[in-house]
Amino acid sequence: MELDSEGRMVVRPLLTDLYQATMALGYWRAGRACEAAEFELFFRHCPFGGSFALTAGLQDCVRFLRAFRLRDADLQFLASVLPPDTDPAFFEHLRALDCSGVTVRALPEGSLAFPGVPLLQVSGPLLLVQLLETPLLCLISYASLVATNAARLRLIAGPDKKLLEMGLRRAQGPDGGFTASIYSYLGGFDSSSNTLAGQLRGVPVAGTLAHSFVTSFSGSEVPPDPMLAPASSQGPTVDLPASVNLWLKRVCVSLGLEEREPHPGERAAFVAYALAFPRAFQGLLDSYSVRRSGLPNFLAVALALGELGYRAVGVRLDSGDLLQQAKEIRGIFRTVGAQFQVPWLESVPIAVSNNIDEKELARLAQKGSEVNVIGIGTNVVTCPKQPSMGCVYKLVSVGGQPRIKLTEDPEKQTLPGSKAAFRFLGPDVVATGPTAVGRRAPTQGWTGTEGLASGGPGAPRTVSQPRWSHCCDSTCNRDSETLPPLDESRSFAQRSLSRLGPAHKQLQSPAVYPVALSEKLRALVDSLSARGPL
Amino acid sequence: MELDSEGRMVVRPLLTDLYQATMALGYWRAGRACEAAEFELFFRHCPFGGSFALTAGLQDCVRFLRAFRLRDADLQFLASVLPPDTDPAFFEHLRALDCSGVTVRALPEGSLAFPGVPLLQVSGPLLLVQLLETPLLCLISYASLVATNAARLRLIAGPDKKLLEMGLRRAQGPDGGFTASIYSYLGGFDSSSNTLAGQLRGVPVAGTLAHSFVTSFSGSEVPPDPMLAPASSQGPTVDLPASVNLWLKRVCVSLGLEEREPHPGERAAFVAYALAFPRAFQGLLDSYSVRRSGLPNFLAVALALGELGYRAVGVRLDSGDLLQQAKEIRGIFRTVGAQFQVPWLESVPIAVSNNIDEKELARLAQKGSEVNVIGIGTNVVTCPKQPSMGCVYKLVSVGGQPRIKLTEDPEKQTLPGSKAAFRFLGPDVVATGPTAVGRRAPTQGWTGTEGLASGGPGAPRTVSQPRWSHCCDSTCNRDSETLPPLDESRSFAQRSLSRLGPAHKQLQSPAVYPVALSEKLRALVDSLSARGPL
Repeated sequence: MELDSEGRMVVRPLLTDLYQATMALGYWRAGRACEAAEFELFFRHCPFGGSFALTAGLQDCVRFLRAFRLRDADLQFLASVLPPDTDPAFFEHLRALDCSGVTVRALPEGSLAFPGVPLLQVSGPLLLVQLLETPLLCLISYASLVATNAARLRLIAGPDKKLLEMGLRRAQGPDGGFTASIYSYLGGFDSSSNTLAGQLRGVPVAGTLAHSFVTSFSGSEVPPDPMLAPASSQGPTVDLPASVNLWLKRVCVSLGLEEREPHPGERAAFVAYALAFPRAFQGLLDSYSVRRSGLPNFLAVALALGELGYRAVGVRLDSGDLLQQAKEIRGIFRTVGAQFQVPWLESVPIAVSNNIDEKELARLAQKGSEVNVIGIGTNVVTCPKQPSMGCVYKLVSVGGQPRIKLTEDPEKQTLPGSKAAFRFLGPDVVATGPTAVGRRAPTQGWTGTEGLASGGPGAPRTVSQPRWSHCCDSTCNRDSETLPPLDESRSFAQRSLSRLGPAHKQLQSPAVYPVALSEKLRALVDSLSARGPL
Repeated sequence: MELDSEGRMVVRPLLTDLYQATMALGYWRAGRACEAAEFELFFRHCPFGGSFALTAGLQDCVRFLRAFRLRDADLQFLASVLPPDTDPAFFEHLRALDCSGVTVRALPEGSLAFPGVPLLQVSGPLLLVQLLETPLLCLISYASLVATNAARLRLIAGPDKKLLEMGLRRAQGPDGGFTASIYSYLGGFDSSSNTLAGQLRGVPVAGTLAHSFVTSFSGSEVPPDPMLAPASSQGPTVDLPASVNLWLKRVCVSLGLEEREPHPGERAAFVAYALAFPRAFQGLLDSYSVRRSGLPNFLAVALALGELGYRAVGVRLDSGDLLQQAKEIRGIFRTVGAQFQVPWLESVPIAVSNNIDEKELARLAQKGSEVNVIGIGTNVVTCPKQPSMGCVYKLVSVGGQPRIKLTEDPEKQTLPGSKAAFRFLGPDVVATGPTAVGRRAPTQGWTGTEGLASGGPGAPRTVSQPRWSHCCDSTCNRDSETLPPLDESRSFAQRSLSRLGPAHKQLQSPAVYPVALSEKLRALVDSLSARGPL
């Protein structure tokens, strides 16, 4: 069995709905397996009640398409669930399938996307492109959902707060966690706790220590080597635990605490961590009591390290009123830093976590907040406001003829035919023009698809001028390595978002981004729906 | 790179939080890497506001533990994110790690579980069992969440409705979909659309056809071979499309429709499907209009097949008022079945889908409902009522000494020490007794851990008698193949649920299942917390 570089063989052809296989047999029996067909993947409503989405997951799709092959074991399983008298030639047809004849046009990774505008346009033999439906939906929908969720959280946090994704343990399965770590970074997070996302996709990783590390120490432990050399490597080594104990006395006097109050096990844990990470010491303050234990223990270790020329890099809080505690801690850092003439202490970053959602994030990011780093887990990874994107994959043409689904539920009607999407850019906003494809929006003063492309990137930068953008070809013959790297897509997403009008960026009751049909497309819809819903 | 039978190499050691690696270095530097430690994996609140959970994911955990090995590429990546002067002996320590010295005690797959009761008890060398935290949480939490969600949906649906999981395309990534298909079956669903879950885990698979199949036909298609032999293979073959056209006339008269009303493309699609699946013909009725197109087309094909001795196996609806339409369709099946003397027609199963949640399911399962099969996607797979289980993994002992986390947030306090959990079974309910471990519930007339085990399975079956149950050892040296097969765990889960008291099975505001501490455990908590939150 071939294994791609990520070992994600679970994304293979049989990770699909059985009806794709039964329909394949139906197409094949009807002699239609190789008819030219095109499907579009799009969403009908922006997630989270917003007015935009970010597209993501393209690299995963390309990887899936390149590897697409039904193997003997797959065919044997399908034979076991299809009618026993199924013609063996059908399975031979399946065995020969690969995606060399499939073309995928896609919005570039990290694009803004709006309802009705295709994220993917997949064309190729009818039977085959039908088979691709479920895996493509699965790969694009969640990636785009997480990227969009992360973008919303970034908008709330503002540009300066560091956002850390740390939701792997809360994710919907291992791949859910892996996907979330990648695409929350694309959507605007700064880093992830997920080591594998760092190893395989280059996401910056971050992390400190957990309560279990702290509570595993009782205080009676003796480090095998308590000696630490100065940061400069100049001068004698120092017994760190002894130095910390001296500093603890001074800190407790300064904070008005009795020296026996700070937990000795917590202090031993901090010392152990500092011996391992003298240049990157951080303290998790709330295993016992922040004010009476975590903070004085942290200060004692940080000041002992400081004497040796090391600077602590952060503290973390994981419970209680995070905003209020950060304020108090910053105040204490200032006082203690001034008292002991350690000016860097007052700017030690304060990181917080504990089930932070959009509302709490807004509070933590408010003006005057002393919080620097915000760790978000469940609420970025599982997207609890709307845990599924609801993308669909609809047939728009077959045998060169447009197809429409004209159900009695107008919500589920589709737009027929192979299309192009255009976006109109003003000087600073992406937000005001229509695209060539959409649902029931009025046509706004333009008349067709082809004419619009001629505007080109050099066209005058007025709002009403058309401008070709955001559409490219990515066929499955191109290696995924030729797709832009994650960092580049992340920058593209942030640039795109920065150009979206503020009214569309509002997270509650935003202005709907207008998406209109060209006159040609509208005429096609009208002619195909002339019979009415039937 | 080794690949297990499912190719899920993404569940490998680096699928973890970076802080597990930084803490590993901290433990190692402190000389504590090999101290004996025990962690417990549990949840604090039952999901979805209910009073129970089902445990799941054990096979995935055992598979992960058996394969656990840090490889060169993993160590190189860790070296790149840890301090550059980290002692190479640390990486040699990591390279030598495997789980042969780790023991996992677990509730059997499909057990009822309650807050505070450990689902997994993981003991082994401190550094190693700390490293296992994130993957184990990730594997158990979502599997158990989905199983619990499915169990709730099964309780609502009652025993007779068939429940089909069909959420792969809505899942949080490919593995999210795969996991959901397996564990919704464990929780009480009958089948899944997910072919891979059938192939790799034996979940029964089901599926029919999509709107795209229907709309891909215009009606002008000519099947390469329109002839169909009778079911008995006795007698001449018949031109199916021609026979369908004859039946269409009669059906339209019967239903009071004009013969031109039913969509010819939809009919061609049904004929194509019937030619491929004469013994398993199903119709998707709502691509155009159920009453004026889908239903007459289905009836024409079903009756033509019926003449040849084949019985249609179902219809599916995917929009509109599903309950009301099912009622109308059943009425028409009765009338048409009587008129044409085709008695089996009236009992053709009616399947429905379309964003069905707990509330809609209750409506569809009400007395007198003519719905037989209910397909659920998003609402079983993504668990939108609560998309994360919130399991935690807490250190309870190290070096043989109990450990407690006594934070200022009482919610986050832990229960110290290695424990056993007991369950008290009455004649018909699991629900009334305490277990030996839990949170702040009163001790109810019993005095210690050891004495309770002696109750054994043969003890009198009164509610207050203790009975050993639901605890077993599963070490990672045992093959996952020795775990019970999925079907068996599914039966176990359903038996357990059937014995849970009705007050605990209520989905809204259920009675809390009592979980109490033994006197010994309570005394330990009291002695360790004597200092107060500090």
